[in-house]
Amino acid sequence: MTIDRQKLRWNGWGWNEAPDPLGERGPAVWEWLRNAFGLKELPETPATDLSSIELPAIRLSASQVDRLGQITTAERVKTDDYERAFHARGKSYLDLLLLRAGKVDTAPDAIVYPTSTEEVAALVAFCNEEQIVLVPFGGGSSVVGGVTAVSRDEQTGVVTLDMTLMDQVLEIDEEALTARVQAGVYGPHLEAALGEQGYTLGHYPQSFEFSTLGGWIAHRGAGQQSNKYGKAERWFVAATLVTPQGVWSSENFPASAAGPQLGSLIVGSEGTLGVITEAVVKIQPVPEKKDYRGYVFGDFAAGLKTVREIVQKGVPTAMLRLSDADETQFLSTLRGSGSTSMGDMRFCLLLIGHEGSEAAVDAAVAQTQQIASDNQAMHLGADPGKGWYKGRFSGPYLRDPLLDHGLAVETLETSTRWSNIVPLHRAVSETLATALKENAAPSVGAQPDTTTGLVMAHVSHSYTDGASLYFTFVFPRDLSREVEQFQAIKQAACEALLEHGGTISHHHGVGLDHARYLVREKGALGVGLLKSIKAQVDPGGILNPGKLIEPS
Amino acid sequence: MTIDRQKLRWNGWGWNEAPDPLGERGPAVWEWLRNAFGLKELPETPATDLSSIELPAIRLSASQVDRLGQITTAERVKTDDYERAFHARGKSYLDLLLLRAGKVDTAPDAIVYPTSTEEVAALVAFCNEEQIVLVPFGGGSSVVGGVTAVSRDEQTGVVTLDMTLMDQVLEIDEEALTARVQAGVYGPHLEAALGEQGYTLGHYPQSFEFSTLGGWIAHRGAGQQSNKYGKAERWFVAATLVTPQGVWSSENFPASAAGPQLGSLIVGSEGTLGVITEAVVKIQPVPEKKDYRGYVFGDFAAGLKTVREIVQKGVPTAMLRLSDADETQFLSTLRGSGSTSMGDMRFCLLLIGHEGSEAAVDAAVAQTQQIASDNQAMHLGADPGKGWYKGRFSGPYLRDPLLDHGLAVETLETSTRWSNIVPLHRAVSETLATALKENAAPSVGAQPDTTTGLVMAHVSHSYTDGASLYFTFVFPRDLSREVEQFQAIKQAACEALLEHGGTISHHHGVGLDHARYLVREKGALGVGLLKSIKAQVDPGGILNPGKLIEPS
Repeated sequence: MTIDRQKLRWNGWGWNEAPDPLGERGPAVWEWLRNAFGLKELPETPATDLSSIELPAIRLSASQVDRLGQITTAERVKTDDYERAFHARGKSYLDLLLLRAGKVDTAPDAIVYPTSTEEVAALVAFCNEEQIVLVPFGGGSSVVGGVTAVSRDEQTGVVTLDMTLMDQVLEIDEEALTARVQAGVYGPHLEAALGEQGYTLGHYPQSFEFSTLGGWIAHRGAGQQSNKYGKAERWFVAATLVTPQGVWSSENFPASAAGPQLGSLIVGSEGTLGVITEAVVKIQPVPEKKDYRGYVFGDFAAGLKTVREIVQKGVPTAMLRLSDADETQFLSTLRGSGSTSMGDMRFCLLLIGHEGSEAAVDAAVAQTQQIASDNQAMHLGADPGKGWYKGRFSGPYLRDPLLDHGLAVETLETSTRWSNIVPLHRAVSETLATALKENAAPSVGAQPDTTTGLVMAHVSHSYTDGASLYFTFVFPRDLSREVEQFQAIKQAACEALLEHGGTISHHHGVGLDHARYLVREKGALGVGLLKSIKAQVDPGGILNPGKLIEPS
Repeated sequence: MTIDRQKLRWNGWGWNEAPDPLGERGPAVWEWLRNAFGLKELPETPATDLSSIELPAIRLSASQVDRLGQITTAERVKTDDYERAFHARGKSYLDLLLLRAGKVDTAPDAIVYPTSTEEVAALVAFCNEEQIVLVPFGGGSSVVGGVTAVSRDEQTGVVTLDMTLMDQVLEIDEEALTARVQAGVYGPHLEAALGEQGYTLGHYPQSFEFSTLGGWIAHRGAGQQSNKYGKAERWFVAATLVTPQGVWSSENFPASAAGPQLGSLIVGSEGTLGVITEAVVKIQPVPEKKDYRGYVFGDFAAGLKTVREIVQKGVPTAMLRLSDADETQFLSTLRGSGSTSMGDMRFCLLLIGHEGSEAAVDAAVAQTQQIASDNQAMHLGADPGKGWYKGRFSGPYLRDPLLDHGLAVETLETSTRWSNIVPLHRAVSETLATALKENAAPSVGAQPDTTTGLVMAHVSHSYTDGASLYFTFVFPRDLSREVEQFQAIKQAACEALLEHGGTISHHHGVGLDHARYLVREKGALGVGLLKSIKAQVDPGGILNPGKLIEPS
């Protein structure tokens, strides 16, 4: 079941009718942010109404649109402004900036909602013949330009394949604990269907409500509880991929030595190699018990050591989420539970989540508590865990009100080896602070005890050999050059990530935004491999062009 | 440190001077086997002496051989008969059959022992220019024709790269629990070097003594304790791969979403994409305690259910090894601990191994014991576990004496979903029995209560979604057509594997022997991808031709 697109924000996050995420904390938060940046007032910067925006002309011919309807049904082919605007871009800061400014400079010429692998195969074949670009689209929650409706000059137009009508759990293998599922299923619908049979995939990214299984695989995502349920490449077993060269079912065995696991190429392919229509994924029994609790540390390093020891000792956890001092303070202020003045509180919050059978959770809680305590943590009990759990999908909703008030919030994320976490954290934080200063709007942060931008980070996912770092930064937009301002900050941060040994993305993906950086970590030979793989399955280059692989 | 090749059997397993693996059990075992097959006597079928074999002429010119010596040193380039025969083939049943018969129809023209990535790069560049085939060779223990020195007609010759001088542990990251290691290191040397620092890779295949890290990665192997330490793709982090297009360092992060993990293509590449010179691998602390013990079940299904429950409940184990009734009986007979008459004992032996801290092992033993007991197992205590552990590398040594007595032993292995284990086990066992009967030597198995071949199997590796099955079959060779006899049996078994939903190999690999079957599980599109990847990195086709990918 797709979500009625009219009920969702075409230029923002989630439901049109979502309540104000700040609620009664609103006035205090605005006042705090205004003070933090030393501004006399926060400007009003509302989004442009769609009715006043002229979309690019439709480039497909009437007969091409008719043909799309013959392959599917006329009702499942959309060319109206709302659908085109909704599918024009994903949900990155830059996407929203452009959409809110009324700059819908690119949009699909048609949106098609297929209902079967066969329909997708016919659509791919038709578009391949006609040199029409195909953009696979699930929830459209990409924050890296993964679904932007772009084409090369010589191409005829762009058809966005909205996969959300393909949402069925086709088969559950209760002995193997695997499920075969259509790729267009939204998170809540998938979990409801699996939950009825007593199972869960357990993949809960922050975008859970508005993202789909196919998207999670395509961009190699990670849910918040990936310590237990695995990042996409861990729970992925096999997929059906529709390509211009035909339909491919990737290898489907518990393990094999029959050459390289080629299905790995699907995970992270970002729609450039084919359209994922179905996938086999590992499922687990719905956990009997969930336990989320908080600890604080006097410094980040002690928290890191705790996380590392827990993971390396093999203590089963669902989530280990360690905020640095700046993020700990920001979250406290946002919730009204801490001081609002800066600099007087330097604690680091660690949230530990356990999920599983009651006995397993209880045993693991005792173990993690011991390790935290051995590292001088103060135990805060269940409240911070419960608070986080309740609001675990609410972060993205905050962005729209910030954008309404002339502010920006953006995130970037990476991973590196344990020994490099502290240096990388420092390097990227400092680079962001400098870039925010160099690109600050006039008069921002000019007063004593004010800043040109808030920079914070947390460890979101952990492994035996290292962990991810997730940075958030909030700053007043320079309304005279908001795109350039952001691009300068983003580029500085990406360079810092790569220079200091981080991957360009741990779970957001590559899309348009990171494609230029890929060669830095995959090497020329690696990018050459990706290109030859792409050329093999999509010689016409119709599949999501420009994403992942930079045009050569 | 390489092993002096003169001390190793060029046409058999292991040390020349290895003791008779049957020891005082010999006479009883030969008598039992003679009776089982209803033979009047077991023939004497000794191997041909190398001195009486003429090897193919060397095709490289003297100046080409000189050039190899200039790139390395003259001492590290070998062209003598022993080195050429030693590197002619791997250790499959078919390899030994041919070598023992004196049919050394193919052999490398030269063997080079490089000592650095730079040397390998220069050798690859030179061979690429000269159209000389390069066969990367570690321990040479392939049982699927992975190192056979073959070339296409238009190619100038074959150089085998013996990697065993590249055997250093270059770096241990104690925080990340990873090690950077040269690929030519033999198992015992690697474990000794890691062990000195308190660590282990934990990869102990049956070939451990005579196989190398690079080989384990190249053929996507699995150690006997892979439940704890992981199959190669699990402990593999990154590698340095020398290709005709240059040296490639694959991605090296704890996790990433920067496109597909291209390093996955190295694992299982079997020398066809490049020469692995170094790898970063995950290591673990040397376990404080090891506990191996045995259980018996009245039927295979109850044992399977036990294994599945242990894995799916997440109880940490190092090894779960469940023999079917035929294998349980065979092993008992071999050890003299069971009845030697057939058909009166139908128990299935399950060996459970735990490794880790004392507390973790004790806790896990209690859990596995409870699950086994819930499934009506009889606990045999530690003796069967200790016995297995002591002889865990001895299996391959048995093959040479069997071959000396006109007998054959071969294995094949696969994996499939839990629900398909019993049907697949039955189908392959029956197919093997039928093929052994149809291809039996005259008068074999003609008497009542005798057989044309012993067929047995065990589950060797287990996963949440399924497990591997490892088949062993023993039969009297038809000396008038021993190659054809084997090929008919092997082909029937491979067809049965694929028809009944198994992979063509769980951990032995593809090599020459399975290449033709690959399309059945990877699909035409998958094999097309492999070919385009190969063409990208090795356009001249000099790297291990014919292996993995069938020539088109």
